[in-house]
Amino acid sequence: MNRRSKYLADLFATIFDQRPAFRTAVDGRPIIEQCRDLISARGEAATMRLAESILATYQGLSSHERLAFFDYLADELDLDAVRLEELAGAYRESPTTGSLKSLMQAAEPARQELFRRLNQSEGATAQLVSMRADLLTLIADHPQYGRIDLDFAHLFTSWFNRGFLVLRRIDWDTPASILEKIIAYEAVHEINDWDDLRRRIQPADRRCYAYFHPRVPNDPLIFVAVALTKGVPTSVQDVLATGRTALEAGDADTAVFYSISNCQRGLHGISFGDSLIKQVVADLSSELPGLRTFITLSPLPGLRRWLETQAGEADPRPARIIEAVEAADDDADALDSIGDDLREMAAVYLAVEKRPDGRPVDAVARFHLANGAQIDNILTSADLSPNGIAQSVGAMVNYRYDPQHVETNCDAFATKQTVALSRSVQALVRAKPKVAAPAR
Amino acid sequence: MNRRSKYLADLFATIFDQRPAFRTAVDGRPIIEQCRDLISARGEAATMRLAESILATYQGLSSHERLAFFDYLADELDLDAVRLEELAGAYRESPTTGSLKSLMQAAEPARQELFRRLNQSEGATAQLVSMRADLLTLIADHPQYGRIDLDFAHLFTSWFNRGFLVLRRIDWDTPASILEKIIAYEAVHEINDWDDLRRRIQPADRRCYAYFHPRVPNDPLIFVAVALTKGVPTSVQDVLATGRTALEAGDADTAVFYSISNCQRGLHGISFGDSLIKQVVADLSSELPGLRTFITLSPLPGLRRWLETQAGEADPRPARIIEAVEAADDDADALDSIGDDLREMAAVYLAVEKRPDGRPVDAVARFHLANGAQIDNILTSADLSPNGIAQSVGAMVNYRYDPQHVETNCDAFATKQTVALSRSVQALVRAKPKVAAPAR
Amino acid sequence: MNRRSKYLADLFATIFDQRPAFRTAVDGRPIIEQCRDLISARGEAATMRLAESILATYQGLSSHERLAFFDYLADELDLDAVRLEELAGAYRESPTTGSLKSLMQAAEPARQELFRRLNQSEGATAQLVSMRADLLTLIADHPQYGRIDLDFAHLFTSWFNRGFLVLRRIDWDTPASILEKIIAYEAVHEINDWDDLRRRIQPADRRCYAYFHPRVPNDPLIFVAVALTKGVPTSVQDVLATGRTALEAGDADTAVFYSISNCQRGLHGISFGDSLIKQVVADLSSELPGLRTFITLSPLPGLRRWLETQAGEADPRPARIIEAVEAADDDADALDSIGDDLREMAAVYLAVEKRPDGRPVDAVARFHLANGAQIDNILTSADLSPNGIAQSVGAMVNYRYDPQHVETNCDAFATKQTVALSRSVQALVRAKPKVAAPAR
Amino acid sequence: MNRRSKYLADLFATIFDQRPAFRTAVDGRPIIEQCRDLISARGEAATMRLAESILATYQGLSSHERLAFFDYLADELDLDAVRLEELAGAYRESPTTGSLKSLMQAAEPARQELFRRLNQSEGATAQLVSMRADLLTLIADHPQYGRIDLDFAHLFTSWFNRGFLVLRRIDWDTPASILEKIIAYEAVHEINDWDDLRRRIQPADRRCYAYFHPRVPNDPLIFVAVALTKGVPTSVQDVLATGRTALEAGDADTAVFYSISNCQRGLHGISFGDSLIKQVVADLSSELPGLRTFITLSPLPGLRRWLETQAGEADPRPARIIEAVEAADDDADALDSIGDDLREMAAVYLAVEKRPDGRPVDAVARFHLANGAQIDNILTSADLSPNGIAQSVGAMVNYRYDPQHVETNCDAFATKQTVALSRSVQALVRAKPKVAAPAR
Repeated sequence: MNRRSKYLADLFATIFDQRPAFRTAVDGRPIIEQCRDLISARGEAATMRLAESILATYQGLSSHERLAFFDYLADELDLDAVRLEELAGAYRESPTTGSLKSLMQAAEPARQELFRRLNQSEGATAQLVSMRADLLTLIADHPQYGRIDLDFAHLFTSWFNRGFLVLRRIDWDTPASILEKIIAYEAVHEINDWDDLRRRIQPADRRCYAYFHPRVPNDPLIFVAVALTKGVPTSVQDVLATGRTALEAGDADTAVFYSISNCQRGLHGISFGDSLIKQVVADLSSELPGLRTFITLSPLPGLRRWLETQAGEADPRPARIIEAVEAADDDADALDSIGDDLREMAAVYLAVEKRPDGRPVDAVARFHLANGAQIDNILTSADLSPNGIAQSVGAMVNYRYDPQHVETNCDAFATKQTVALSRSVQALVRAKPKVAAPAR
Repeated sequence: MNRRSKYLADLFATIFDQRPAFRTAVDGRPIIEQCRDLISARGEAATMRLAESILATYQGLSSHERLAFFDYLADELDLDAVRLEELAGAYRESPTTGSLKSLMQAAEPARQELFRRLNQSEGATAQLVSMRADLLTLIADHPQYGRIDLDFAHLFTSWFNRGFLVLRRIDWDTPASILEKIIAYEAVHEINDWDDLRRRIQPADRRCYAYFHPRVPNDPLIFVAVALTKGVPTSVQDVLATGRTALEAGDADTAVFYSISNCQRGLHGISFGDSLIKQVVADLSSELPGLRTFITLSPLPGLRRWLETQAGEADPRPARIIEAVEAADDDADALDSIGDDLREMAAVYLAVEKRPDGRPVDAVARFHLANGAQIDNILTSADLSPNGIAQSVGAMVNYRYDPQHVETNCDAFATKQTVALSRSVQALVRAKPKVAAPAR
Repeated sequence: MNRRSKYLADLFATIFDQRPAFRTAVDGRPIIEQCRDLISARGEAATMRLAESILATYQGLSSHERLAFFDYLADELDLDAVRLEELAGAYRESPTTGSLKSLMQAAEPARQELFRRLNQSEGATAQLVSMRADLLTLIADHPQYGRIDLDFAHLFTSWFNRGFLVLRRIDWDTPASILEKIIAYEAVHEINDWDDLRRRIQPADRRCYAYFHPRVPNDPLIFVAVALTKGVPTSVQDVLATGRTALEAGDADTAVFYSISNCQRGLHGISFGDSLIKQVVADLSSELPGLRTFITLSPLPGLRRWLETQAGEADPRPARIIEAVEAADDDADALDSIGDDLREMAAVYLAVEKRPDGRPVDAVARFHLANGAQIDNILTSADLSPNGIAQSVGAMVNYRYDPQHVETNCDAFATKQTVALSRSVQALVRAKPKVAAPAR
Repeated sequence: MNRRSKYLADLFATIFDQRPAFRTAVDGRPIIEQCRDLISARGEAATMRLAESILATYQGLSSHERLAFFDYLADELDLDAVRLEELAGAYRESPTTGSLKSLMQAAEPARQELFRRLNQSEGATAQLVSMRADLLTLIADHPQYGRIDLDFAHLFTSWFNRGFLVLRRIDWDTPASILEKIIAYEAVHEINDWDDLRRRIQPADRRCYAYFHPRVPNDPLIFVAVALTKGVPTSVQDVLATGRTALEAGDADTAVFYSISNCQRGLHGISFGDSLIKQVVADLSSELPGLRTFITLSPLPGLRRWLETQAGEADPRPARIIEAVEAADDDADALDSIGDDLREMAAVYLAVEKRPDGRPVDAVARFHLANGAQIDNILTSADLSPNGIAQSVGAMVNYRYDPQHVETNCDAFATKQTVALSRSVQALVRAKPKVAAPAR
C-alpha cells in the first residue's frame, strides 16, 4: 500500500466513525404517513430523523402491514404516466433545458427519491438491501411489486458500482467477526466449523477473497475460495481432503476456483462475480508468476433434473445415468459405470441445450461463459456429497479463464451466444451413444 | 478509530491500489465513433479500454472539436421524446413491470449511460468533473448544452452522495501534496505561502477541515477554516493577524468559520457546504465542550453593487456610504464615519431585499439561512482587504449556528422563506435613516 | 488515534515488512564454533548470517547437545573475575574514562554480547525467549545455569521495557490468529472452544486486553479478562455463566478482573501485570465514567496446601475445613458448612502468614499488594471448578484497585510490607475460632 | 503491507496514544535531591512522577547548576571500585549465581539505573538524547564527564538497536511537520525552502529515506537523499540543477546517494548510517530491477586542510593545488588547471594517509569503507559551493556499494584495514607528480 493510499485509508475509516451508535427515536405514526413526510421534507436533520424512524418502523411491521407498505410503494409512488406523456409531448415541441428538466423529474417513480432519502441515514444501505430481499420473496404472489424492484435494481446498480467495491483477502488473520460470516455464507461446499474454515483459509495453498462495500461494512457481498495446486484436481473431495499436505504457494501451477458464494439475497441480479474472478486472476498472476492455469471446479446444478426430462427419449444414455444414480444411493461406485455417458450428456446439457434467448440452460454455465471462460473439461465422481449427486449426478465442470482469450470469448458470447469449448469437450458433444454396456 | 473501522480503512485503501498506473492506449479514431462503440459495448474489458481511450482523446481535442463533441452529446444522445411519449401511453394503458422497465429506459438520455460507462475507468471521476467544468463555461453561449448539464448534475448528485464524503482535519501533519492544494484553493482570504498556511493550520486555536471523495482522492472538494477564540472577533484582520499568541483550544468559547472554499468548479451546484459545517460543529462540540458559540465571519459579496443601485433613492444612506468608500481608496479611516449607515443598509440588503422566489439576493445569506443559521450581527471595517472593500464595503456578517435552532430555522426558511434575525439585526432593519452627519 | 500516531503506525508496520521470509542457510558446524565466530564477527552481514544459523542450529540440538551448549555459555562465556578484579583496582587508582570503559566491558559476561548479536536476526527475540524457557526447566538440576539466566533476565528487562509494550483490546474483531493464542494461553479459567471464547470477548459487558511487543508480534505477552457488572459478583461461576443476559457497558458500575494469564514462560520474572492492570483501569475509567469499583476475582493457589500444614494445630478450623473439602468430592454442598471458618483462615493465610522477607506467602497476594491493591473481601464457594477446590477450597479473593489509594498502598507495601486490608477482612483476621458446629 | 503487519501497525500507534498530554507537576526541590529519591523509589507511579519532574527541572537549570548536576552524575553515581574489587574477588572464590548477581549489580554505575528510570516517563527518550547533546559540548573542558557519556552510549546503543528503527520514504505525501525537519537537518547540501525541498523529493527520479524511532517519534534520526540517474553524474551541481527534466524511475540504471545527514547530535557515535544505506540499496534493488550501480557522491571534508600540511613537501602537487584554489575565489575556472593533480592527491589522501589505528584519516572514507564500499572514482569541480571548495577543493568521491562485494570488503577492512579501490583509483594512487604545468 503506498503512502497516498494510506492517507486515504485513514480518510475512509472515518466514514464508519462519524456517528456514534444511538437508539433511534421511532416516530409512532404509521409508516406511510412518515414516508409522505420524508418525500416532502426540507433540511438534512428532518430527513435523517424521518429516514431512521421509517427504517426502524419497517422492522416492526407485521406481514400484513408490510404488504400495505409495498402496495403504497407500488401504487401511490408510481410513475404518473399521464403527466409524463404530456411532458414528453411538451419536450418534443420545445426541447429546452427547462422542459427536459421537468420531463426527467416526472420520468422517475417517486420511490427512487424515497429510497435515496432513506439511504441517507446511518446503516440504511444494509437495511434497504434487506428490504429488497423481503420484496423478492413476495413478487411471485404479487407480480405488481416487480415495478418496485425495478427501482431497487436501478439504485443498487449505481450504489454498488464496482468502483466502490473493495477486494480483500480472507485468511487466518481476518477478524473473527468477518470469518463467522464466511462460515455462514458458504453456499457451495458447506463449512462445518472453525477448524473446517481454518483448513480452507490458513494453508499456504488456499486463498479466499471477498468483496466489501463501505456502506455495508459488516458483511462481505461475495467471496470466492481458491485452491493452489499442481495440475488440475479431479474432484472437490481432493481439494477439501483433511489429511493433505499443503503446497508452497510458489510451487503451484494452477489456481482452482472451487466455490463462489453470493452473500446478500437482496443484491440478486447486481453482478459482482465477473469482476471478482477477473481481479483475483490478475492479483494471483502478479503475486505468483508460476501460475499458468486459472480454472474453476463448478457444479451443474440443473443436470440431473434435465436428464430426467430426457430419459424417455431415443438416446439410451439419460436412462442409463438415471438408473445408476438411483443405485448410487446404496453404493457410490454405481456411478463408475456411467462415466462416459455422463460426460457426453453433461457436455450436451451445457453446450447444446439453450433457453429461448439462445443462451445455455445452465445458470452457472451462463455466468462463466458471459465472463469469457471456456468449458474446458467435465469430471465425473467429482462431487460425491449428497447435494452434488442430487443436483449434478456427482459431475463437475472446469471453466478455464485464459487471460489471452477472456475478452474475445466474452464478446463472442455476448454478441453471438458462442459457447467456447475445449477440443475434448467438443468431442464429447459430438459423441454417439455407446451400445448398452453388458450386464456387470 | 475503532477496530472495525481500522479493518475497513484497510479495505478502502485498496480502492486506490487496485490498478497499477499505466499508459492508456489511445484508440486513434474520432471521439464520437468511440463513444458510439462504448454505448453498445459488451464485456467489462472492452468497456474499460474504450472509456480510457475516450477520456484521453477528450484531453487532446481542439476547442472546435470539443464543441462538436458536446453537440453530439446534446443532440444524438438526447432523449427520444416521441418514443417516450408512446411508451408513457403504453404504460398508462397497461402498467406492468415490463412496460415500466421499457419506459424507464427510454426516459433517461443516453448521455447518462455514456457517463456511467466512462466512469468505470481509473481516475475517470475527476476527469468527468473537469469535463463538466469545461461545459459550464460554454453554456452561456450554447444554452442547449444546459440539457447535457442536467445529466451531469443528476449523476454527480448520486456519485457525490454525502454518505461517501469523508471529513478530514487538515493540519501541519497533513501530507504536503494535500496542503499545496489548500494553498491553491483558498478562495476567500488568500494564502500567500507555506508560512501563511502554517499560521492557519498549526496553532492550537486554528482548525481546518475538508471533505474528500474516494474516487477523486487527490483533491479536497471543499474546506472550511475555523478560528477558536474567546468572544467573537470583530474583524478578519484580527483572525489573520501574524503576531498573535495562540489560545489553548480548551480555553476557547467560540468557533469562528471565517472561510469556506469550494475546490472543484465542475461540482458547481452539488452542495456539500451545509453538511460540512454541521459535521464540523458536531465534531468541535464533542471535542471541546467549552465551545458555546458557532459563528461565521462572512462577506456580503453583492453589497456594494446593490448600494450603488440604491444611491439615487430617497434614502440618503446609500449615497453617503458610496461616497465614503470611494474616499477610502485614499484613507481607510473614511469608512469609520459610516458605521451605522452601513450596518443598517447591510441589514436591509441581507434581510429585506429578495429575489423573485422570495429568497435573499445575497448568495452567502441564502446558503447560511438555508442551513439553519441566523443573521446575528453585522460588523464594519471587518475586512479591509482590497477585495473586502470592493465587494462588501469592508463589512462582514456573523451567521450564528445554534444547534438548538438550526433545524427549526432551516424548516422555516425552506417552507416560508423566513429569515432568522437576532434582536440587534432586527433593530438595524427597522432603523430610520439618520439626518446627514454634519460636515467632518 | 490522532494523525501523527497514524503516520507512526504506518512507520511501525514496516518493522515487520522489512525482510522477506526465506529459508535460513544453516552453517553445518557445531553451535559452539559458530558462537565463537559470532562473538568476534565484524560487519552486519556476517553477524546476521551467523545469528540466524546459530538459532536454527539450536532448534535441532539433542538434549545432550543442549546441555553442552548451556555449559559453554555458563563457563566459557562467564565473567573473568580475575581480570575484573585487576581492572577494578586500576580504576580505583585512576578513575579515568578510559579505565572505566575497560572495566565496564570486563564487568559484563560475554553471554550478553552473544545474546545481543543473536537478537539482531529476524524473529530472534521470540527464539531467545523460548531458549530461556528451555533454560529455566534445567536450572533445578543444573544450578550453575542460574548465572546464564541472570543475563537473560538483565537483557529481557531492557528489551521488554514497558515503553515498547502495546496494549490492545481483544474482541470479536481481532484476527483469528491472535484469538487462537488467547484460547491456548488462558491459564486461570480454561476456554474450551470458539464459542466459549466468544462468550468472553463479544458481549458488551466483557473485555479482554493484552500486551504485545513489536519483536514478538505473533504472540500476546499477557492478557487480562474483565467482566463489567452491577455490583461485585460472588463467584466466578456467575461471571462465566452461559445463559446470562449481557449488560450495556454504560450501565456497569464495577469492573471485575477475573483472569490474568502470562503467556510466555520464557519471560518469567519480567513483570508486565502491574502496568497492564493500571493501564486497563485508566482506560476503562475514561471510557466508562460509570465505573466506580475496580476489583479482582482471584484464586488463593496455596490455601489448601497451607491449611493441611495447619490441621494438627490447636486451632480447630483448619481440620474442619479439610474434612469438609474432602467430603466435597462427593457433594459440593459440604463446603457450605465451613463458610465462616474458611473466610477467617483465608484472611490469616493472606494477611498474616509471611515469608522470611516479610511478604505474604501467597504469590497472587504478593502481586496485587505490590501493585497497590487492598484485600477487600473473601468469597467462599466462589470457584467450584476441580482446580478451584483442589487449590483454593473453592474460595476467591477480591483485591480492590482504588485509584485514590494505589500509590500509597504500593509505597507502604514496598517499604514496610504493610498489607492493605478492608475493615471486613481486618475483622476476619481477628476472629476467634468458633466452637465446633454441632453434628449436622 | 501484509495483514499481520497492518494489525501490528495499529498496535504500535497506541504507543503514542497512551497518555494524554498534560502539564508536568514540577517538584520544587533541587534536582539532585529528586534524583536521589528516584533511584530509591518503589512503585511505578512514584517513578513516573519523579522522572517527569526531574526532566522538567533539568530544562530550567542555569549553566552553573547544570555543571553541578553533571558533577553529581560523574562522582556520586559513579562505580564503587572498592566494592566491585571485593565482589569480583568473592566471585573468583565462589562463582555462584548469587555472587554473580551481586557482582553484576555493583559493576554498573548507578547513573544507568537513573537514566533507565528517567526514560520511563513520556517523551523522556528525546529529552535524554538532548541531555547527552549538552554533555558532549562540555566534555572538552570537563574530561571527567566522559565517564557519564560511557553510560549514555551504552544505553543508547541498546535503546536505538536497529531492530526498532523504521525506514520510511520521505516524499511529497509526507506530513509537513516531518518535512520541515528534513529542511532543517539537511547538513550536506542545504535546502533553502519548500520549493527546493520539493525538487529533492517529488520528482520520479528523486528519493529520500529516513530512520525513525518509536520513542522519538517527532524526529527523523538520519536520512539519505538519492538521485536516480542514467550513468553516474559528474557533479552535485548536475544532481541539484533546477531546470532539469525528471527521468522515469524505471529508466534509471544508477542510484546516487548524494547526501546523508545525521539529525540528532545527542546520538553521536550510535551508528545507523550503515544499516540505512544497505536497506535502501536492498529496497531500491527490489523495486527497480533496472538499477545496476549504487554509488555515493561524497565530500572529502579534510582534504584542503591536509593539502595545506603537505604544501611544503618535495611533491609539487599540493602547492599547485593550494595556489589554484586560492585563485578560485576570484574565478572558479582556476580549478580546471589542477584536475589531475587534485585527483591524484585526493586518492593519496583517502587511501594512503592513515591514522595511528591504520584507518584512513578521512572520516567519510572510514564510514563508507567500514560499510563495505569501494573508492570508485574521484571527481573534480564536482561541488563548487563555497563549502565544497573550502573543505574539499571542489572534489567529490564516488564510493560504490556493490552488493556482490560489500560483505568481503567489510570484513577485509574490519580485520586488515584493507581499503578497496577501483583500478582507476589504484592508478591515481601510484601516479608520479607531473612536471609543473607551463604558465597559463
